[in-house]
Amino acid sequence: MAEYTLTILGSNSAVPAHDRYPTAQFLKHKQSSFLIDCGEGTQFQLNKYHIKRGNLNHIFISHMHGDHYFGLVGLLNSFKLNNRQHELHIYGPPELDAIIRLQADYTDAQWPYPIFFHPHSFEGVEVLMENDSIRVHSIPLKHKIPCNGFLFREKPKLRKIVASSMEKYGVHHEEILAIKKGGDFVAASGEVIANALLTEDSSPSYSYAYCSDTMYDEDLVQYVQGVDVLYHEATFKSDSEDKALLRFHSTARQAALIAKAANVGQLIIGHYSAKYKKLDELLTEAREIFPNTELALEGKVFDIPAC
Amino acid sequence: MAEYTLTILGSNSAVPAHDRYPTAQFLKHKQSSFLIDCGEGTQFQLNKYHIKRGNLNHIFISHMHGDHYFGLVGLLNSFKLNNRQHELHIYGPPELDAIIRLQADYTDAQWPYPIFFHPHSFEGVEVLMENDSIRVHSIPLKHKIPCNGFLFREKPKLRKIVASSMEKYGVHHEEILAIKKGGDFVAASGEVIANALLTEDSSPSYSYAYCSDTMYDEDLVQYVQGVDVLYHEATFKSDSEDKALLRFHSTARQAALIAKAANVGQLIIGHYSAKYKKLDELLTEAREIFPNTELALEGKVFDIPAC
Repeated sequence: MAEYTLTILGSNSAVPAHDRYPTAQFLKHKQSSFLIDCGEGTQFQLNKYHIKRGNLNHIFISHMHGDHYFGLVGLLNSFKLNNRQHELHIYGPPELDAIIRLQADYTDAQWPYPIFFHPHSFEGVEVLMENDSIRVHSIPLKHKIPCNGFLFREKPKLRKIVASSMEKYGVHHEEILAIKKGGDFVAASGEVIANALLTEDSSPSYSYAYCSDTMYDEDLVQYVQGVDVLYHEATFKSDSEDKALLRFHSTARQAALIAKAANVGQLIIGHYSAKYKKLDELLTEAREIFPNTELALEGKVFDIPAC
Repeated sequence: MAEYTLTILGSNSAVPAHDRYPTAQFLKHKQSSFLIDCGEGTQFQLNKYHIKRGNLNHIFISHMHGDHYFGLVGLLNSFKLNNRQHELHIYGPPELDAIIRLQADYTDAQWPYPIFFHPHSFEGVEVLMENDSIRVHSIPLKHKIPCNGFLFREKPKLRKIVASSMEKYGVHHEEILAIKKGGDFVAASGEVIANALLTEDSSPSYSYAYCSDTMYDEDLVQYVQGVDVLYHEATFKSDSEDKALLRFHSTARQAALIAKAANVGQLIIGHYSAKYKKLDELLTEAREIFPNTELALEGKVFDIPAC
């Protein structure tokens, strides 16, 4: 399996329908796992698709509409019942903290593992978390209530060592990390060996942007410019554009317009209204504007970037 | 379909597993519907089994363990999104009220239909609700935290009119209800016609008792004596009786012992530990004590009484 993958756990909006679940996505990046939104039933979906939770240490909640967080306390409770010990970080609207704490008290489910809650400020772009290889920013979205998208951007990767040069120039093991970071090497003779002779380019750094829920908003283009994969909500078809505007949602066509303007690699649409049993017309509509569009569907796994 | 039926929506305990959902049951009695507990995913199960929610006006929550109530806010939210207008009554532990109110505020989901919350007192047997044809009592259970079972008992039914007697004795339409209630009839001649000449027995009044979660408790026998159908939790097999005791749960054998001592018509067991993928050994164990035992399984419909 690729190192950087996105699994769709729930693709529907508002009420569950047509065997589609409310919003949740599982993002795997090397050894780290991230859950993005957590609608009711997310833990069932993790079971169904045999997704391991051991490395799931970061959960991002976009906003306080129930179809994006009602599955959270159930998941936290199952972590407890499965004897989780290690820490969990939750990034969400400030109000979410009280809900987690209230239900820990009332359900006799005092969380026996440390939960660190990181409230969104909803003030522009914030760095929410980072580790050695990835950084997560918020993306300001325009919805009925405060709402953030999330941008998962790989950090620049270390350069690849050319093995034959190590021997040729007498590089020692402890010097390799500095060379991977781009440093030159001073040989025993005093000669400076340029980094270009020791390394080659590594693969580019890839990025995934998650944008749900949002009205059509051209300001978004600047935040998702050139990302490899963009998820953008597409609750309605264009013939319901008025309804989309009224409810601070987007149409499939509007999602594609953002993807095109931002020159992204691939667009995934989702968060479908329950009124659509079939989704082919939403896909067709988006592809007319942005051909490399795919539907979010439960269990579907996307490589980042798409190979 | 029979007038009085029980549909199992979720049969598992604690964490969902083996395609089994956390606890929820749907009880239909004539024109009324009742939801008993509401684990995560209950609304998906109502969809799956095509159960109409229009007459679902009463929800009973036994206790504050998440596998019995984490689906409630999702269901309430979907009622809202589906434009429910009419009132809903919720009977549960006092702490549940705050959770419902908190999430109504925080999710921008001010409930647009009236919700009446009726807190359990947990002091002996309480009448929780009644209508013309059924009365619901609490059943004191012994669990780790305060917990109630529920007894749904049909009220004595009106006697059946013997049509031929109406004409024979000149009974008028407006006098029929009093006769159905057991009254005699005074004919125009002044003659008193005994009720026994005007009516015949109606069917008995049936009862359903729901007991989850509870340790083995012989005090329970008095509360469920002679009910037509008893649901009693059976989280473990007998070889885990120590574990059952430690966790305030019961074994299948213990559930059957209660059913036998209370001389019930039928026993349904459920609330299985996730460690049991197959359930046949739990059923065998219970049937050795109480032969008319059935497994609660998702989607299974039981008539009350079993025909």
